[in-house]
Amino acid sequence: MSRETVSHEEDGVIYEFTPELEAVRTVAPGTELTIETIDSLDGEIQENEDLLARIPDEINAATGPIAVEGAQPGDVLKVDIEAVRVAEDRGRVLTTPGFGLLQDDEDVEAPFTQITPVEGDEIRYGDLSVPIDPCIGTIGVAPAEETFSTLVPHDHGGNLDTNEMTTGTTAYFPVSQTGGMLAMGDSKAAMADGEMCGTGAEIATDIDLTVELISDPEFDLQRPLVDTGDYWKTVASAETMEAASKLAHKDAMALLSAEHGFDATESHTFGSLVGGLEISQVVDPLVTVKNAIPSEYVSSPF
Amino acid sequence: MSRETVSHEEDGVIYEFTPELEAVRTVAPGTELTIETIDSLDGEIQENEDLLARIPDEINAATGPIAVEGAQPGDVLKVDIEAVRVAEDRGRVLTTPGFGLLQDDEDVEAPFTQITPVEGDEIRYGDLSVPIDPCIGTIGVAPAEETFSTLVPHDHGGNLDTNEMTTGTTAYFPVSQTGGMLAMGDSKAAMADGEMCGTGAEIATDIDLTVELISDPEFDLQRPLVDTGDYWKTVASAETMEAASKLAHKDAMALLSAEHGFDATESHTFGSLVGGLEISQVVDPLVTVKNAIPSEYVSSPF
Repeated sequence: MSRETVSHEEDGVIYEFTPELEAVRTVAPGTELTIETIDSLDGEIQENEDLLARIPDEINAATGPIAVEGAQPGDVLKVDIEAVRVAEDRGRVLTTPGFGLLQDDEDVEAPFTQITPVEGDEIRYGDLSVPIDPCIGTIGVAPAEETFSTLVPHDHGGNLDTNEMTTGTTAYFPVSQTGGMLAMGDSKAAMADGEMCGTGAEIATDIDLTVELISDPEFDLQRPLVDTGDYWKTVASAETMEAASKLAHKDAMALLSAEHGFDATESHTFGSLVGGLEISQVVDPLVTVKNAIPSEYVSSPF
Repeated sequence: MSRETVSHEEDGVIYEFTPELEAVRTVAPGTELTIETIDSLDGEIQENEDLLARIPDEINAATGPIAVEGAQPGDVLKVDIEAVRVAEDRGRVLTTPGFGLLQDDEDVEAPFTQITPVEGDEIRYGDLSVPIDPCIGTIGVAPAEETFSTLVPHDHGGNLDTNEMTTGTTAYFPVSQTGGMLAMGDSKAAMADGEMCGTGAEIATDIDLTVELISDPEFDLQRPLVDTGDYWKTVASAETMEAASKLAHKDAMALLSAEHGFDATESHTFGSLVGGLEISQVVDPLVTVKNAIPSEYVSSPF
């Protein structure tokens, strides 16, 4: 089967994950795709002098949505991310007023832009080089009932800003609408866990992936889940990090209980011994926390 | 120089870090010590039937305090942690009413105890084995002004419940009182980042370390800092994870600025590209967040 390309330019993007998305492409399960994404700021920031005066109404363009044949509510979309490649010669990290962890800090300038040129397998920040370690910032499916802008993460995925959405991992999303409706964009060449200033090194990418369908799974997936090979990581978003931590931990407990027959008290206490909570991002309208369970304790929930 | 032993049994423990601690031992900088610690619950929990009805008034016994000759406010105590060895045949992980991330969850039983027997380099949780990967839960020095129970983490250290306080790492603490007054205990055989149920596998340990003094350092250390070899990790505690994240990020920015001459905006944006925020614990009266800066970007602040 040859790889099909879905492009932000040729096929289209969304700026909202809604319950009633219309597919730009419909593919069979098992289809190998290359998704072309533009940077989160639609190419508007190309030089250090290009400043972002405010968060635009349309941000984090997500290429798609792509319908998967046969996907029905209650199913799970399995996305094998085979490669995330940077597709332009520069990234950009920036501040904008009213956004980011230090938005109220008088020592931090906003707006401010630092272009990070690509040089081989690194980007440059002034004199310093940072290894390119790309991730997909926004990735998700059509939600059950609410509409979420692509700036917001929630149970459907969306702006998760999670470093594990990268080459070699498998992401799982709960299907809430016919076709699932996968869309993604907002990639980074590099990003700190936390994404403290509000961006990583935002960059266009080409993403190779294979989309598979898990019909009527036994495990009741509520939120995104990532298999890195070494860890199963639950991914939960909420108003506060405490609330997101609870969700991510309870999702991990569900994995442990399904595998080992633990009751809630056992999965809670066992889950307090291995792996643990991690931070995706602390800057979006909802924040995102992960809980990592070492793969030796969870084979597969599906 | 032969290694000196400081023991919870022979020398004593504290349950509060106060500004006016009296040393149980005074040592010269460079002294090699073995610190013997009892488990956080003073040996009261030995079987699954031993339940913790409530958090005791005295918890997290910290062996010490140890005065370091010449240490003055404004100095930094450098603690090379050479080995943390489990020193009894079992750990214990448990819940107690009103404590832990899921204390309001009706599915979780409290009190509940699971004894985790030591078998070689693992502990057992029922049929499952977990590699022993010990850490020191409570470690700190005399605070500047306030008194903190050993249940509380703050700028002096204390109940940081940070997995990096372990074999092979170097911890730094700001000295606020003459002698510094180092004390530690509350070790775990294993603990998930987050310590969600409120404990790891609590266990007695013998800790080999060398304590050094950095007099009048150029870098103004505000809070604990750990050098793991691969990362410099700032460690900050606050009421919320958001507030702790801000402190941990600002401390990391200070490291980056000291090394590279960055202003706040540059260290903020560069710090959003590498390493990032991590969770120590989300269950103590104040929560603790780390920020990891890869060592290639910070040589040493001292």
